[in-house]
Amino acid sequence: MSNNNFNLPDYDIAASTRIRLARNLSGIPFPSNMSLSELEELKKKVKSAIIDSHTPYAKTLKFIDMKDVPQIELGAMVERHIISPEFASKPEGRAIILSNDESISVMIGEEDHIRIQVILSGFQLEKAYDIAERIDTLLCDKLSFAFDNELGFLTECPTNLGTGLRASVMLHLPLCESSGEIKELRENINKIGFTVRGIYGEGTNSAASLYQISNQITLGISEKNAIDNLKIIASGLIEKERSLRNSLDITKASDTVFRALGTLKGCRILNSGEMMSLLSVIKLGVSLGIIKTEIDAFNILIENQKYMLMRKYGEISPDERDIKRADAIREVFKEITL
Amino acid sequence: MSNNNFNLPDYDIAASTRIRLARNLSGIPFPSNMSLSELEELKKKVKSAIIDSHTPYAKTLKFIDMKDVPQIELGAMVERHIISPEFASKPEGRAIILSNDESISVMIGEEDHIRIQVILSGFQLEKAYDIAERIDTLLCDKLSFAFDNELGFLTECPTNLGTGLRASVMLHLPLCESSGEIKELRENINKIGFTVRGIYGEGTNSAASLYQISNQITLGISEKNAIDNLKIIASGLIEKERSLRNSLDITKASDTVFRALGTLKGCRILNSGEMMSLLSVIKLGVSLGIIKTEIDAFNILIENQKYMLMRKYGEISPDERDIKRADAIREVFKEITL
Repeated sequence: MSNNNFNLPDYDIAASTRIRLARNLSGIPFPSNMSLSELEELKKKVKSAIIDSHTPYAKTLKFIDMKDVPQIELGAMVERHIISPEFASKPEGRAIILSNDESISVMIGEEDHIRIQVILSGFQLEKAYDIAERIDTLLCDKLSFAFDNELGFLTECPTNLGTGLRASVMLHLPLCESSGEIKELRENINKIGFTVRGIYGEGTNSAASLYQISNQITLGISEKNAIDNLKIIASGLIEKERSLRNSLDITKASDTVFRALGTLKGCRILNSGEMMSLLSVIKLGVSLGIIKTEIDAFNILIENQKYMLMRKYGEISPDERDIKRADAIREVFKEITL
Repeated sequence: MSNNNFNLPDYDIAASTRIRLARNLSGIPFPSNMSLSELEELKKKVKSAIIDSHTPYAKTLKFIDMKDVPQIELGAMVERHIISPEFASKPEGRAIILSNDESISVMIGEEDHIRIQVILSGFQLEKAYDIAERIDTLLCDKLSFAFDNELGFLTECPTNLGTGLRASVMLHLPLCESSGEIKELRENINKIGFTVRGIYGEGTNSAASLYQISNQITLGISEKNAIDNLKIIASGLIEKERSLRNSLDITKASDTVFRALGTLKGCRILNSGEMMSLLSVIKLGVSLGIIKTEIDAFNILIENQKYMLMRKYGEISPDERDIKRADAIREVFKEITL
């Protein structure tokens, strides 16, 4: 349950960094218009380009045919952000190439032929991009990408045209949220071509106060510029959140944090939404030094989602899931004193 | 903090039983019309009748002149139900005779000249009445009570005329309350000359789900009849509450109980209202066997009221009080595992 993520850059606020590159092969239709045999052919080509490359990277990567993946594991992969929900919903003809630590995943036959994705914990845009670029180079050496000298990489959806790059940072912004400032920050960020999206939540706020900041512009901009701009914006949000944290009343904050911990240590029934809200408070408490622990609330949050639980306990009803989730969470926090 | 109250009759639901007898001396005005010197004279007479009686009872009783009691202790006596708020508000000329265990208190110079009060934990109407009657006899032997052969004991307020007896039982009715049945029960009980009063709370519900059931009729009825009728009504409520408890879903109940315990073990700031609500859940949890402990939630509830805390920590602000209360409560529950 514990890990050494706490030493990662800005991990008090930046949960993770994600780079995604959309690539298509020239001369064949986009996946939405491909036959199953064409998809099978595509899988083979991509697999061969990476796995058979005999580069050091290849050794850490495995090819997984989606049709061999049980339904529950598909859901659990979505929860671990390895594949998209759309990809999980049509496994036939699809495959992924996945690294052992699951930080690298290449979806084959998603909206585009190839989606290279790198997710790292903390705020590590350059490092994530470097890794994605290496996979991109491996593929580029063996395959002929659909590329236009004027436009750049061609993609199924015009919003990805050009760099095919979507860079994002997942930030934990509980105080920007509770102070109400998130609304204005979001509007301002939208105006300059970036998106702020509450994840795991409906409406304005996010269940775990987690917000994904990502670039929207892919055309007429270099990868480096897109990443640099995102870095500036995310850094600004991180500083904003930090300054709000510095002005917290420590007694009130401790009260909130230890009540959340008390609930997590005591609950016998826990739904996913409440778990996320409470873990968000725990994460804040750990970042503020109120709780001393190696437990990574962000990991616990993912590990106790619906399909992740069903992976452990089989096909259980929502009510049983809430009981199993409560049992698991109590176990996680049992050694931490209130 | 712990005690052996758990063996008392119906202590799972009946927090306490109270008997109060209103008595007045003949030939002098009621306290509202008495001069300070007349009140002083009254105090002396009552003190002499009880304390100087050299009966076994007298040894366990002490005379306390209200003017010697500090303001904070007056408030704390109200919280411990030893004196009434009205009595505490005009200490000059008033006194009480109090037993060592505080179960017997005789207020001198309240609305009536003498108010004998006996409070016992659990459901013990006869026993409480027996004790009150003995004090009454002690007084009656030495003093001349205002008594009318037709009406009975004469009192300042006509609602006490006759027996001068107010008998009450304090019941913990969280499930009658949460099921909404308390409303109808209350209406029915009112119709037959008894009162159901939520204590420690405004409006319909009581902060700690504690309800005081008491007789209203004192004229044309014997003490025994009044007590027997109250006993029947309180027993009915106890059975009703028990049957609701028996049909509880144990997982849901455990969830509620351990969340409350988690909050009490974790909180750093706790106001009185929330404390009462949470302790009410703990009391229920202990009665249901969900929590095993000797800790008596009803005692903890009283010990951490406003003036009871100020008695320990001096004149502290409401904010400081909420912090001290949280500290004290965490300490109480620290050994109980979640």
